[in-house]
Amino acid sequence: MNFDIDKREFLKGLSLMQSVAGRKTTLPILSHILMQWEKNFLYLTGTDLETGIREELSATILQEGKASVSGKKLYEIVRELPDETIHIQKKENHWITLQCGKSIFNIAGLDPDEFPSLPGYQDEYFSKISTHLMREMIEKTVYAASNEESRYHLNGVLFIQKKQDSGPSGTGQGGQEILRMVATDGHRLSLIDRESPTIRGIEKGIIMPKKGVLEIKKIMGDRDGEEEMEIYFDQTHGFFKMGKSLMVIRLIDGEFPEYEQVIPKGNDKKLVMEKEKIYGCLRRVSTMASERVEGVKFSLRKNSVELSSYHQDFGDAKEEFELVYEGAPIEIGFNARYLMEALNVIDTGEIVIELKDEGNPGIIKPLSSIEPSNQFCIIMPMRI
Amino acid sequence: MNFDIDKREFLKGLSLMQSVAGRKTTLPILSHILMQWEKNFLYLTGTDLETGIREELSATILQEGKASVSGKKLYEIVRELPDETIHIQKKENHWITLQCGKSIFNIAGLDPDEFPSLPGYQDEYFSKISTHLMREMIEKTVYAASNEESRYHLNGVLFIQKKQDSGPSGTGQGGQEILRMVATDGHRLSLIDRESPTIRGIEKGIIMPKKGVLEIKKIMGDRDGEEEMEIYFDQTHGFFKMGKSLMVIRLIDGEFPEYEQVIPKGNDKKLVMEKEKIYGCLRRVSTMASERVEGVKFSLRKNSVELSSYHQDFGDAKEEFELVYEGAPIEIGFNARYLMEALNVIDTGEIVIELKDEGNPGIIKPLSSIEPSNQFCIIMPMRI
Repeated sequence: MNFDIDKREFLKGLSLMQSVAGRKTTLPILSHILMQWEKNFLYLTGTDLETGIREELSATILQEGKASVSGKKLYEIVRELPDETIHIQKKENHWITLQCGKSIFNIAGLDPDEFPSLPGYQDEYFSKISTHLMREMIEKTVYAASNEESRYHLNGVLFIQKKQDSGPSGTGQGGQEILRMVATDGHRLSLIDRESPTIRGIEKGIIMPKKGVLEIKKIMGDRDGEEEMEIYFDQTHGFFKMGKSLMVIRLIDGEFPEYEQVIPKGNDKKLVMEKEKIYGCLRRVSTMASERVEGVKFSLRKNSVELSSYHQDFGDAKEEFELVYEGAPIEIGFNARYLMEALNVIDTGEIVIELKDEGNPGIIKPLSSIEPSNQFCIIMPMRI
Repeated sequence: MNFDIDKREFLKGLSLMQSVAGRKTTLPILSHILMQWEKNFLYLTGTDLETGIREELSATILQEGKASVSGKKLYEIVRELPDETIHIQKKENHWITLQCGKSIFNIAGLDPDEFPSLPGYQDEYFSKISTHLMREMIEKTVYAASNEESRYHLNGVLFIQKKQDSGPSGTGQGGQEILRMVATDGHRLSLIDRESPTIRGIEKGIIMPKKGVLEIKKIMGDRDGEEEMEIYFDQTHGFFKMGKSLMVIRLIDGEFPEYEQVIPKGNDKKLVMEKEKIYGCLRRVSTMASERVEGVKFSLRKNSVELSSYHQDFGDAKEEFELVYEGAPIEIGFNARYLMEALNVIDTGEIVIELKDEGNPGIIKPLSSIEPSNQFCIIMPMRI
C-alpha cells in the first residue's frame, strides 16, 4: 500500500472539496482532486480556477506519491465505507486501488502533473484576524451583492482598509486601522466597519467574488473551533489559511462603484422602531405585495406609520403602528425583501430608519451612539 | 364579522389543502379553496379534480356564509399572523376581509357556487380499518409503481380483497378476509397481503393513483393520533374519512396487469442474508454502477457471493461475503436501486433472495415461516 488513512479524516477533507471540484466542466481534470501523500500527510487540492482549496490530512505514508481522481466519485465511495482504515495503492496508468473492509475499488485517474497548480503564496505576508469578526462582516454585507452576471464588478464584496477618522477636529492623531466591507447591487448598499489588524494588499480596495466569500464562510462553519484565520491579498488573489485549510480566491478584476458618493446626507427624519415589530409587520404586509416588485408603502403621519401593499390579483393589506414622529406626512415605497434582509443582519433590539423625502434613499441601521455609524444599509425608494 | 377562528386551527386546515389546491392550473377556481361556515364549523374544501380534501374546523359562526379564495395566498397570509383570533367578513363581489391583531387584509374571491363539488358519498358504506395497517401496506408497495405517464394503468396501486387461501387441502372452511395491495412498473412488482375487515367496492380490484395514495399517507402523518380511518370505494372514486378530514380520490380507469402470472414458481436457490449487510454492500458497490442502468452483478459460488459493478468512466468495485449456498455457480445482474428499495420496506433482520437462474426474475422477501409469503418483491434480472 502507498498510504493508509482513517475513513472519517478522509471524508472530512473530501467533503470540503465538493463545492470547488466542478461537476460539469469542459476541462475534465477540474472535476478531479489532486492527492499528494508525503511525510505524514495527505494533501487534497481542488479548484475551479476561481476558488482553490487545499487540505492537509493526517495519514500513514508507506511510499510517497500522487494521483488525480474524480472528486465527486471518490467522495461518494468514501461516504459509504465503514469507519475503518482505508488503504490506497497507486496503480499503472494513473489509476488507484482503494481497499476498506472487504470492499475493493479500482478508480480511474488522470496524470496528476496535469492538475493546475494553485497560485503561490508567501508565508510571511499573512496576518491574523479573528474568524468571528470575518464571519460577522461577511454576513452583514454579502446579501446586498448583485447576482446579475452582466454586472460583474458588483458580484462581490469590496474589502478595503483605512485609518479610523480622527475624533473631533483638531484632536486627530490618526486612528486605529479599520477593515471595511461594502456590497451593492445598484438598488441597495450594505457597509460595515470594524477595527482590525493591518491586512496586506487592500489599502486601495479589492473585490472578493460572492462565491469565494461564501466559500470562506462555509469553511469557517466547518472548522468551528478555529478562532483565528490568516489572510493577505496580492494583485489578483486572496489567500486564506485556517487550521489545516488553505484557500485561494481569484479577485474580481473591475472597478467598484464610488460608493461614498451615494451615502445620503441630510436624512433628517429618524424613525426608531423595535426590530421584531417592523420585521413581523413587513412579513405580514408583504404577502400582498406583487411578486415582481415586492413593494410596501410606508405612510408616515404624526406619531404613527401605516404599511400597506396591493396585489392586482389577490387584494391588499395594511397594518398601522405607533412610533415617535413629529415631522410632515410622507409616503414612500420600498422593496420589502430588501428591508427584511437588512433587518436580518442587525443585532440590536431597536433599529433606526432615516429618511429625507419620497424620492431619496432611506438608511437602515442599528440604534447606536456611534457616529458615523459603523454598519448601515442604504435602500433606494420605489414608486408604488 | 361572519366568523372568528383561532389562527392555529385555521393554519392547520389550510396547510392540509396546499397539495391539492393547484398553483398552476388553467381553471382559476382550482387554485382556490372553498370556505363554508355554518353552525359551529368552518369547512374547507380543495380539489385538483383527481384528489379532493374537505376539512372540518372549529369556529365561532356569527352569520353563515361561504367564499372561495386563493388557497396558496390565504395560507401565506395566515402563516404570518400572530397566534390570535382571526375575524373574517364576507364582502361584496365575493371578496373577504380578514382581520387579526392590527393587520387588515382584503382578499379577492370568486363566486363560491362555481367551486366544483366533491363526489357525493354514502355514510353507511364506510368500514373501519387501522391507519397503522393502511400506512404499512402503502409504504410496502407504492415504491414499485411506475412514474411513466405513458403507462397510466401502472401509475398506481392495486387494492383488491379476497378470502385467505384455506389451509391444507380438505380442511378449508374459507378463510379470513385479506386486503392485498400490488404495484409494478414492469421491471419489478411489490405485493403485500394483510388480514382486514371487508371493504366495500374492491372485490374485483381497483387502482388507486400514486399521488392519491401518497396524499392519504400524508394526511395519516398529519393526523398522527388517529388509530382508525373509514374507507369505501365506488366505481370511480375512493372515499376516506379520518378524524375531521374527508378525502375523495378518483380511481385510475384501466386494467391492472395479470400480476399473478408473473409471480415466479420454482425459484429453488434460496439465499438468506442479514439485511443490513447486503444493504451496505449494495450501497458501496453501486457507487461504481453506471447511472443509467444502476446494475450490480451477483456472482454466486459455493458458500459465498461477490457483488461487483463497473463504470466506464470511473472504474470498478467489488465486495465478497459468505453465506450458505450449495448450488451451482450463478452470475446474475440486478438494478441495485430496485434491490435497495425492496430491502427498505422489509422489517425483519434477515431476508431471503430466491433465484432460479441467470435469466429469470428474483424474489426478495422477509425471512418468515409464512407460506405463501404475505410480502415480497419480484425483480427482473438484467444483463451486465
